[in-house]
Amino acid sequence: MQPTSLHITMRRFYDDKDWPPLWSVLRPAFRAGESYPCDMDIDEAGAKAYWLAPEKNTILAEDAASGAIVGAYYIRPDQGGLGDHVCNCGYVVAPNARRKGVASQMVRHSQNEARERGFLAMRFNLVVTANIAGVQAWQKAGFEIIGTVPRAFRYQNTEFVDAHIMYKWLGDDVQNQD
Amino acid sequence: MQPTSLHITMRRFYDDKDWPPLWSVLRPAFRAGESYPCDMDIDEAGAKAYWLAPEKNTILAEDAASGAIVGAYYIRPDQGGLGDHVCNCGYVVAPNARRKGVASQMVRHSQNEARERGFLAMRFNLVVTANIAGVQAWQKAGFEIIGTVPRAFRYQNTEFVDAHIMYKWLGDDVQNQD
Repeated sequence: MQPTSLHITMRRFYDDKDWPPLWSVLRPAFRAGESYPCDMDIDEAGAKAYWLAPEKNTILAEDAASGAIVGAYYIRPDQGGLGDHVCNCGYVVAPNARRKGVASQMVRHSQNEARERGFLAMRFNLVVTANIAGVQAWQKAGFEIIGTVPRAFRYQNTEFVDAHIMYKWLGDDVQNQD
Repeated sequence: MQPTSLHITMRRFYDDKDWPPLWSVLRPAFRAGESYPCDMDIDEAGAKAYWLAPEKNTILAEDAASGAIVGAYYIRPDQGGLGDHVCNCGYVVAPNARRKGVASQMVRHSQNEARERGFLAMRFNLVVTANIAGVQAWQKAGFEIIGTVPRAFRYQNTEFVDAHIMYKWLGDDVQNQD
């Protein structure tokens, strides 16, 4: 249940000017150590190298009213070559913009973005099982849990937790895609 | 059933002198388009960049008698930061050295190598289901199928096939690892 839905607009990461507001969204997510496979104390340069790696494309979610960046996601091929029809995305929402439909809007946008880029499926490789709201949101969006990797993630760097692999086929018709 | 078992020795990829014989092992595997997520017609420079990416460490399997390189595997963290206790490996065997126990010896070696590097688990993300011998060999080595990703791989770039995710915990005792 989302009490209020924030009106957001989506746009591509443009240049270095976009980094400071993006970092302000990423930093609390990384520091929390609850979902992203980077070090909790990753520094700004490390975070920039991680999130803006060459194979990743970043889309920013802006509050349509204020222009503030309230979320972001990256999209990249999950594998190369003969596996490059499957993409992988990672999403993040600013703490003060949670439970306002931002994640749902980004998940929807990312599927269209994936199709536009020619991807036929989307796969998440490390969905921390403790992230129940996230798992439910992705399931609602049509993603299925393919399997669960035991102890794949060190939650807050203090305990091992399992992580789901989630997947959704994005093509209209399998027979016509090959 | 392996009719004869080749006596191999394992050593690290050392320098550019090791590349040509390694490429001679990788090339037929890549050209076959049956297991590796790169382009089937990947050129030598592309293959080198793919296999010798900075995060990958390569171990070579040499025929102990002739010194010829008959196989290789890479080992790398599957994820960064809070997921970097899980590694990922990729194996390749030269066509003329198949069914001689080379893969089994590399799988065994890679688990020890992983433990020495501090990894606690190993995960494969794209085990093409058509690779029945490989799947069985990994299962025999204690890897389990975590899940199966539909149409994750374009087999010989002509048809979609599913791919397993396989996993093995390498730590002795979960309680003592954290």
